[in-house]
Amino acid sequence: MVEKATTSQGPYEIPHFSRPSVNTRVLLKNRPLAVPQPSDFAIDEAPVPVPGAGQLLIRNIYLSVDPAQRGWAQAEANYSDPVPLDGPMRGLAVGVVITSRHADYAEGEYLYGWFDWQDYAVVDPSKVILRAREALPLAQFAGLLGINGLTAYLALTGLGRPEAGDTLVVSTAAGAVGSLVGQIGKLMGCTTVGLTGDDEKVALCTERYGFDAAYNYKTADLERAVAQSAPSGVNVYFDNTGGGILDTVLRQMAVGGRIVQCGTAANAQWNPPPTGPRNEREILTRRLVWSGFVIFDHAAKYEAAASQLAAWYREGKLVTETDISDGVEHAPGAIAALYAGANRGKKLIYIG
Amino acid sequence: MVEKATTSQGPYEIPHFSRPSVNTRVLLKNRPLAVPQPSDFAIDEAPVPVPGAGQLLIRNIYLSVDPAQRGWAQAEANYSDPVPLDGPMRGLAVGVVITSRHADYAEGEYLYGWFDWQDYAVVDPSKVILRAREALPLAQFAGLLGINGLTAYLALTGLGRPEAGDTLVVSTAAGAVGSLVGQIGKLMGCTTVGLTGDDEKVALCTERYGFDAAYNYKTADLERAVAQSAPSGVNVYFDNTGGGILDTVLRQMAVGGRIVQCGTAANAQWNPPPTGPRNEREILTRRLVWSGFVIFDHAAKYEAAASQLAAWYREGKLVTETDISDGVEHAPGAIAALYAGANRGKKLIYIG
Repeated sequence: MVEKATTSQGPYEIPHFSRPSVNTRVLLKNRPLAVPQPSDFAIDEAPVPVPGAGQLLIRNIYLSVDPAQRGWAQAEANYSDPVPLDGPMRGLAVGVVITSRHADYAEGEYLYGWFDWQDYAVVDPSKVILRAREALPLAQFAGLLGINGLTAYLALTGLGRPEAGDTLVVSTAAGAVGSLVGQIGKLMGCTTVGLTGDDEKVALCTERYGFDAAYNYKTADLERAVAQSAPSGVNVYFDNTGGGILDTVLRQMAVGGRIVQCGTAANAQWNPPPTGPRNEREILTRRLVWSGFVIFDHAAKYEAAASQLAAWYREGKLVTETDISDGVEHAPGAIAALYAGANRGKKLIYIG
Repeated sequence: MVEKATTSQGPYEIPHFSRPSVNTRVLLKNRPLAVPQPSDFAIDEAPVPVPGAGQLLIRNIYLSVDPAQRGWAQAEANYSDPVPLDGPMRGLAVGVVITSRHADYAEGEYLYGWFDWQDYAVVDPSKVILRAREALPLAQFAGLLGINGLTAYLALTGLGRPEAGDTLVVSTAAGAVGSLVGQIGKLMGCTTVGLTGDDEKVALCTERYGFDAAYNYKTADLERAVAQSAPSGVNVYFDNTGGGILDTVLRQMAVGGRIVQCGTAANAQWNPPPTGPRNEREILTRRLVWSGFVIFDHAAKYEAAASQLAAWYREGKLVTETDISDGVEHAPGAIAALYAGANRGKKLIYIG
């Protein structure tokens, strides 16, 4: 198993992989209408691709499983083009440079980026999100320093703008993004309230992630619970679900509150859009600011965010949970499992 | 008729009023569930009140009719307390100081503020919004420099943040706020698109207020019209209606677009809230910023805004329409007429 307790700036060494001439890939075979199911994928084997001038050949080690992959697989216009059918599923990964034909990248260097769900990727440097240079376990570059951690930090600080004394409510609070949002909010002086979908996760929220209160939205009287935990109203709502949970929290926002829309996991399907109570009157009378966040708009801030997150982690101020399945055969069902809430923390597939 | 072509800093002269010892008032008698109707009000006569130390006695000249009065009259919690039953309807007015028991205010000085729907008001200086000092027709202090003009300027520039080249869509575009939003947007270099409710107003939008395009939302194919006028998407939507118009425009916002929620006139009643298509997925994928604006949060910026608006007006860069009814008997039906779209520009009741 390829694992490094810490990464560094070198000297680099390329690890050995079994079957180095086979590129095992997870192909998207059907365009799902809702959450992608195992039957929407097929695993195949192809030759290892060859990088051209200026390109890198990367061997992936951790495939990242992300809720946003649902949208990437669907056909509707979204913030990115749909994944081509019969091609490898679009995805993030941590990998090592096997062959570099670009002067800025060394062979043996670990990178995090758009390397897709396959063993080997040939990419331009534009597909690299972050170099794995901070002293951290390798899996953390797809977790704490991956889009989950970067999203938690940049969306909360940039759009949520929490101030000391604010009450911060977070949905999917035990998840990879939500658990970090709660901890970062706490570091910034907020009272933190986590909403999650089962009692085990409720316990995780308060015991492991330090939320001041947490509720199971499936069994709690959510309106009453939020009112009790946020008697002066909710100043920041970090929402990963949308749907009925959003409707309830939105109606308990304080004047001037900020809603960060970071995900919409509550509805699997948006065409046609489901209906719900109209919100414009609430936005007006409570003077809310409701903003959408997509991490890829914020690339210029990745390095600074990663550096802050890594520092907090090393100081013991952030804890993370990583849920790693071993073997590519776990990939086809992984997105559906994520939407079913089966993971505990950041979901990765190890293929080293 | 008391009218002044311009106002000034003095010397002041108190005009003469007929029946100076009678305070005619428009009382709120029933709490409306929706738009206040004439039957919700009664006109009575009371003695002229006497100011205490630090207070002002003001004789109103123009009563302002504002869409927000609907919310003030209703019982539900809102951004201000409900108007007490059997008291004068809460409202803005332009009036003249008859008696001043406060060193900062001179008798004969014209003021705009919270003087309610009555001839005479005794107020603390906290009820004054603006002194009528700019060289403008007196009615303009309840229009261009009243909350309509201040709202247009402060909400558009502060929350809409238009940039040259942006496409700005405005609902109730021929109204007191919308017509100014369109003109200010044009001064800032935007392509402006007005939405309004009849063909006569459509013509006003393009011919008088300089919108690049305008549509009757009751008869046009709104989706198609907006797509045609905003081929690269809508960068700023200044919304005074909510409802179906909002749903349509929201789905044509450009990535990073701003929605300013300034009114919700499309629905007369919000308890329970009407339903509509869910919008959180649009907010997320288009990275929108949807903000609510209530003018009274922005008092610190009134004077600077009023000065800019007055300068533009005197330079001939802004045109305004004022729709004045003569006599207090027009007040009880005025809010309902506003919601029925019967006014042309800023609605005032002259009681001088």
